[in-house]
Amino acid sequence: MSERLGIPLKEVDTPALIIDLDLMEKNIAKMSNFLRGKGVNLRPHVKTHKTPILAHKQIAAGAIGVTCAKLGEAEVMVESGIKDILIANEIVGSQKIERLVNLAKHTNIIVAVDHEANIKELSMAAEKKGVMLRVLVEVNVGMNRCGVEPGEPALNLAKRVVQSKGLKFSGLMGYEGHVVEIVDVEERTREAHLAMKSLMDTKSLIERAGFSVEIVSGGGTGTYDITGVYPGVTEIQAGSYIFMDLTYRKVVPFDCALTILTTVISVQSDRIIVDAGMKSVSPELGMPEVKNHSELIVAELHEEHGIIRSTSGTFHLMVGDKIELIPSHCCTTINLYDRYHAIRNGTLEAIWPIAGRGKSF
Amino acid sequence: MSERLGIPLKEVDTPALIIDLDLMEKNIAKMSNFLRGKGVNLRPHVKTHKTPILAHKQIAAGAIGVTCAKLGEAEVMVESGIKDILIANEIVGSQKIERLVNLAKHTNIIVAVDHEANIKELSMAAEKKGVMLRVLVEVNVGMNRCGVEPGEPALNLAKRVVQSKGLKFSGLMGYEGHVVEIVDVEERTREAHLAMKSLMDTKSLIERAGFSVEIVSGGGTGTYDITGVYPGVTEIQAGSYIFMDLTYRKVVPFDCALTILTTVISVQSDRIIVDAGMKSVSPELGMPEVKNHSELIVAELHEEHGIIRSTSGTFHLMVGDKIELIPSHCCTTINLYDRYHAIRNGTLEAIWPIAGRGKSF
Repeated sequence: MSERLGIPLKEVDTPALIIDLDLMEKNIAKMSNFLRGKGVNLRPHVKTHKTPILAHKQIAAGAIGVTCAKLGEAEVMVESGIKDILIANEIVGSQKIERLVNLAKHTNIIVAVDHEANIKELSMAAEKKGVMLRVLVEVNVGMNRCGVEPGEPALNLAKRVVQSKGLKFSGLMGYEGHVVEIVDVEERTREAHLAMKSLMDTKSLIERAGFSVEIVSGGGTGTYDITGVYPGVTEIQAGSYIFMDLTYRKVVPFDCALTILTTVISVQSDRIIVDAGMKSVSPELGMPEVKNHSELIVAELHEEHGIIRSTSGTFHLMVGDKIELIPSHCCTTINLYDRYHAIRNGTLEAIWPIAGRGKSF
Repeated sequence: MSERLGIPLKEVDTPALIIDLDLMEKNIAKMSNFLRGKGVNLRPHVKTHKTPILAHKQIAAGAIGVTCAKLGEAEVMVESGIKDILIANEIVGSQKIERLVNLAKHTNIIVAVDHEANIKELSMAAEKKGVMLRVLVEVNVGMNRCGVEPGEPALNLAKRVVQSKGLKFSGLMGYEGHVVEIVDVEERTREAHLAMKSLMDTKSLIERAGFSVEIVSGGGTGTYDITGVYPGVTEIQAGSYIFMDLTYRKVVPFDCALTILTTVISVQSDRIIVDAGMKSVSPELGMPEVKNHSELIVAELHEEHGIIRSTSGTFHLMVGDKIELIPSHCCTTINLYDRYHAIRNGTLEAIWPIAGRGKSF
């Protein structure tokens, strides 16, 4: 790629993943400002951006560390100097557990558990490596993914962690992923409260059994202002707020700071074709939107082509023109790219490698 | 990653993109054997595997070169020594066209066109660089994506190419992408014949105008045995046959040679959770299937989790067990990974980087 910093946006070759830096910085500041003084920490989920410099920007704005979905992402963050990382997932198997305890030598790692056998493996590996691995018991608060059931089952796992050498029981994680995209705010609030009540009831049970519950982690971008102020929640995991997408735009008031720059490669009588398809913008939550062109509709995404129709029946674009698409799902779209092109005032200010891209292992 | 060649499949860390080498080699041989002696060339589409060593295996089995969807893929193939490349797409904009003509200095590149302005730009750049760029006129044979309409419009573009310095008119491309996944063989045959008839009528028109049509390119995995034997078609672009997926398995008799190895990270009363989600297996054509476990259904794909239910209501898998998923769409799934793990007789024989991954630009 022949791009030089300082060139205008329209000279960036396509398809390219574009950050509007002013809007992104506004989103980072808005989340920090909302949470400040509310007694809850922000530990942003970096599965969204997968990029060290962005994690460091979030920390500079007040975040206490980061949340990762996968060990491979955590490794990237550790290499960039991040000091406090929650892996909000179960880490299973001897190879991964060895990577995990080695990583814990270099940073403060917290990992989720939901099964006795896993606790035993983690304990043996941590003890052997000589690290004290911090552990959250993951509780199923209604998403029905990972997580032990609330109440006694969670208490029993907590006890098991407390009894395990090399492990420190640090609290609970309960992610209400089934709630975060509910558009109706009353329903979203009601469902988030239900989820957090089951988590807090479990917390009380564990405390009554004599164990300290230092961390209670939950919350996504869609519930930052609900779960984030629920009594007893100590940290939230919101990630998408930094960039937003069409799905979250219906839910919470942050700005869409991420687009795909794409070139018109063909103009036909009833359609134009751009060079961004499913390999450049993920389709699973719906078609992207064309920024600043409300008359244009993305009708189809093929692998490397987007087919765009016009509600007015006419097109004012020519072969070679560039337009921007707003993705319906930022996290999976970003995972298609090796780098961001970061723009301010219409010119290219930075190109940032997405070091965590594809690090699902 | 700590993997050593020779380890058993079950020791490969997950999620991992797995090739069954015996099945893949069988697919390559089967396509070559079918086309041999039929007077049509195979120019396999490498958008599927995006990997030089696999392209070279296809060429060793008789393919005349490769087809690419994007210039970035073509660059990867040229770097690997591939000598004959069709970019089955319009290459638009001065930056890309400069890359294209530079690439044409090092290999035999053929590119598609569907617009006069693009022909003019290509011509100027090719002449300036001192290359003779081979050009196919892309004809819309019913997919309604790129491509000029058949008949006179295609003839007019062909004339324009013939008149342009630096360009050599080499023939026509008409990809019947709207046909290749039709399951009913009679309907698929009828529709493919319709598409190819419009292409051949256009070819005749151009020949009657006095121009030679050396190449007529079309055909995908779903129509290899229809378009591949249609009189006048000189080469077909099939790509997915090398690996197959659930979608193409309903259409043509090749073997599914590609899977995702994934680990069970949580077992709950009514579900198990694996470490492969939408960032490890693409969801847009449907859920993946669990190989060798007909009782298991992938119910949901989250970003980094797959949720699996059992039709029998019980699970015989434990935390740490590994299973394989067969993707519904091989091309977009492969584009999520940086490397293949290639397996033969149950052991790891090679790890191959996917050099073209993400090269959509």
